[in-house]
Amino acid sequence: MATVRLWTDAEADADPRVKAVFDDIRAVRRADFINNFWRALANQPTVLERTWADLKQVMAADGALDPLTKELIYIAVSTANGCSYCIHSHTAVARSKGMTDAQYGELLAVIGMANHTNALVTGMQVAVDREFQV
Amino acid sequence: MATVRLWTDAEADADPRVKAVFDDIRAVRRADFINNFWRALANQPTVLERTWADLKQVMAADGALDPLTKELIYIAVSTANGCSYCIHSHTAVARSKGMTDAQYGELLAVIGMANHTNALVTGMQVAVDREFQV
Amino acid sequence: MATVRLWTDAEADADPRVKAVFDDIRAVRRADFINNFWRALANQPTVLERTWADLKQVMAADGALDPLTKELIYIAVSTANGCSYCIHSHTAVARSKGMTDAQYGELLAVIGMANHTNALVTGMQVAVDREFQV
Amino acid sequence: MATVRLWTDAEADADPRVKAVFDDIRAVRRADFINNFWRALANQPTVLERTWADLKQVMAADGALDPLTKELIYIAVSTANGCSYCIHSHTAVARSKGMTDAQYGELLAVIGMANHTNALVTGMQVAVDREFQV
Amino acid sequence: MATVRLWTDAEADADPRVKAVFDDIRAVRRADFINNFWRALANQPTVLERTWADLKQVMAADGALDPLTKELIYIAVSTANGCSYCIHSHTAVARSKGMTDAQYGELLAVIGMANHTNALVTGMQVAVDREFQV
Amino acid sequence: MATVRLWTDAEADADPRVKAVFDDIRAVRRADFINNFWRALANQPTVLERTWADLKQVMAADGALDPLTKELIYIAVSTANGCSYCIHSHTAVARSKGMTDAQYGELLAVIGMANHTNALVTGMQVAVDREFQV
Repeated sequence: MATVRLWTDAEADADPRVKAVFDDIRAVRRADFINNFWRALANQPTVLERTWADLKQVMAADGALDPLTKELIYIAVSTANGCSYCIHSHTAVARSKGMTDAQYGELLAVIGMANHTNALVTGMQVAVDREFQV
Repeated sequence: MATVRLWTDAEADADPRVKAVFDDIRAVRRADFINNFWRALANQPTVLERTWADLKQVMAADGALDPLTKELIYIAVSTANGCSYCIHSHTAVARSKGMTDAQYGELLAVIGMANHTNALVTGMQVAVDREFQV
Repeated sequence: MATVRLWTDAEADADPRVKAVFDDIRAVRRADFINNFWRALANQPTVLERTWADLKQVMAADGALDPLTKELIYIAVSTANGCSYCIHSHTAVARSKGMTDAQYGELLAVIGMANHTNALVTGMQVAVDREFQV
Repeated sequence: MATVRLWTDAEADADPRVKAVFDDIRAVRRADFINNFWRALANQPTVLERTWADLKQVMAADGALDPLTKELIYIAVSTANGCSYCIHSHTAVARSKGMTDAQYGELLAVIGMANHTNALVTGMQVAVDREFQV
Repeated sequence: MATVRLWTDAEADADPRVKAVFDDIRAVRRADFINNFWRALANQPTVLERTWADLKQVMAADGALDPLTKELIYIAVSTANGCSYCIHSHTAVARSKGMTDAQYGELLAVIGMANHTNALVTGMQVAVDREFQV
Repeated sequence: MATVRLWTDAEADADPRVKAVFDDIRAVRRADFINNFWRALANQPTVLERTWADLKQVMAADGALDPLTKELIYIAVSTANGCSYCIHSHTAVARSKGMTDAQYGELLAVIGMANHTNALVTGMQVAVDREFQV
């Protein structure tokens, strides 16, 4: 279904640039599993390297936002963009990071309301209040 | 600029349904300020009542997600939807709820990366890994 | 603010292709007013001609959907796309075609709910029921 | 494929809150069929209750817009948002409410043109005419 | 899966308007293959005729932009809109027009970065520099 | 109007990390002008550094796609996302890189048609032809 070939481990091992990224993904995540996104990006090593380096930095555990909150934000954006793969993968990761059913229910509720009020505001073209401007 | 008239306090006071909602907004928020969104919705009392009732329930403080996290999610959705009003209002509210510059920087970083990888995944039409399926 | 120059009537009159389109717009709409969209498109006569010919055909009065219903659909799409100009222009046209405040209120309500449930469905990645498939 | 489990009738019957909503859906629609959207939302009873209450109110038959027009608007929004499930379900419902092939053809035509001119206007960043402002 | 029936060649041959369009598609593309998009649009001959006439004009080979560049732009838009069918079809066409793996990798990279910086700009609501205004 | 402060040159000069990025932007672009996007990102030095490093790599002149083609793709994505700032800035840059009025007209035409057919395909939920799959 993808527009590109998904690289197998054998193929990745044979390409030093791809192997280095896959090795680092496994080390950072402490897991052997490499998901399809990276196997697809392997066709473009430069994009693969940059995307992983960026994602590793952005999603790093020791920031001002905790890892679960970052996943919730990722789900919200992916839902607004209708990215099926991203919704599935980040929902799975959020659960693995401890997201409860109650938290997931509230996440869905906030996503629903945000899209709802976004549409009402846009439909009425409401001007920004002076109080909200920096 | 809006497609509808923004109701003044005097006009709202003269309409029992609108007055009831404005009074409740002030009570819940413990502030006199009513932002333009509600003044625009006042033209449609039924929509006003339902939207406020829903938003009050969804954004209530005592849920499984803390109020600031909900605001971050709201900003993420509003950014994906390009809703200028919503971005301004929820960024202002997030700051009033304690969002630090470091948190805001990470929020922007996650939003940027999520839109970035959403686009890469969608462009390559990557199939969902079996591991991510419930 | 536009990325292109808006053509004046004098400029349009001096270009046969643009003049022909502007004349037809005035004839079809029975009004002298030419809105900025067409004055911007005048920079690209081929696009201008095709867009007007298409729009005239699609929005023609004697179809299976009445003109006001078409405007409501146009507003709904423009709101989902966040096109401020299109929201303003089609809301104004809808009103000129008889849209009442009650109809506008319900339009906004449906737009809000559609964006709301779209987001919930997408967030949960619900599979299409067999009953809904042709 | 969904990120949540779809509730069976037996499971729904065992949960008073979910049962009450499912019963009301069946009563309002005068049909036994409960589509997957509600079976997915059943995981979050609070969201289920609010969403059904809102949808029932917004899509109620006796408003200023007729039920078919509301479905056409729903399809337009769902298409702009790329919500496959919503497109399928609301197209099926529109047909059950009497949408003819000719009406569907015009709906698609308006949706196509709206997205087309939305993009042209946005690409050229055309400023709103004074005549379109309230 | 589609909301409409896909016309077979036999059905298309029996309808003069559809046959004329299918014949022209085959002549312009110098290939017998008619893809599903046109077989779906055949249900609405007026939309079929207009869409093909427009697309033929816009994608014509002898313009100011070369055919491959137009396909890259089409892929970029289709990715932003999350149109799976369009991404698959235009990526296939781009490859048939000579798109190399290196070009595809850069296309994906630009699409990724554009969505990334679009989101950052929108999230911060940056005002347009005077230098960028016409 | 922005949600963050735009840094002046004096402020940037006083922060080594921001100064280093601004200096590099000026060197790469061979121009003194620093646009608002970077002045806004300066509030978040880590995001500023990563975004500039990425953008410099992606938009570098010596790739498989020429610089003007990359700008056209950027405009197409920015238009689909409704990012006003991005449309203005990249249209200005495209012109500075030699985009002619004829090329711009065709870019707009392709963007318009892509959004048009994306919507038709999505509205009809057309399945991907086997011929388009890798």
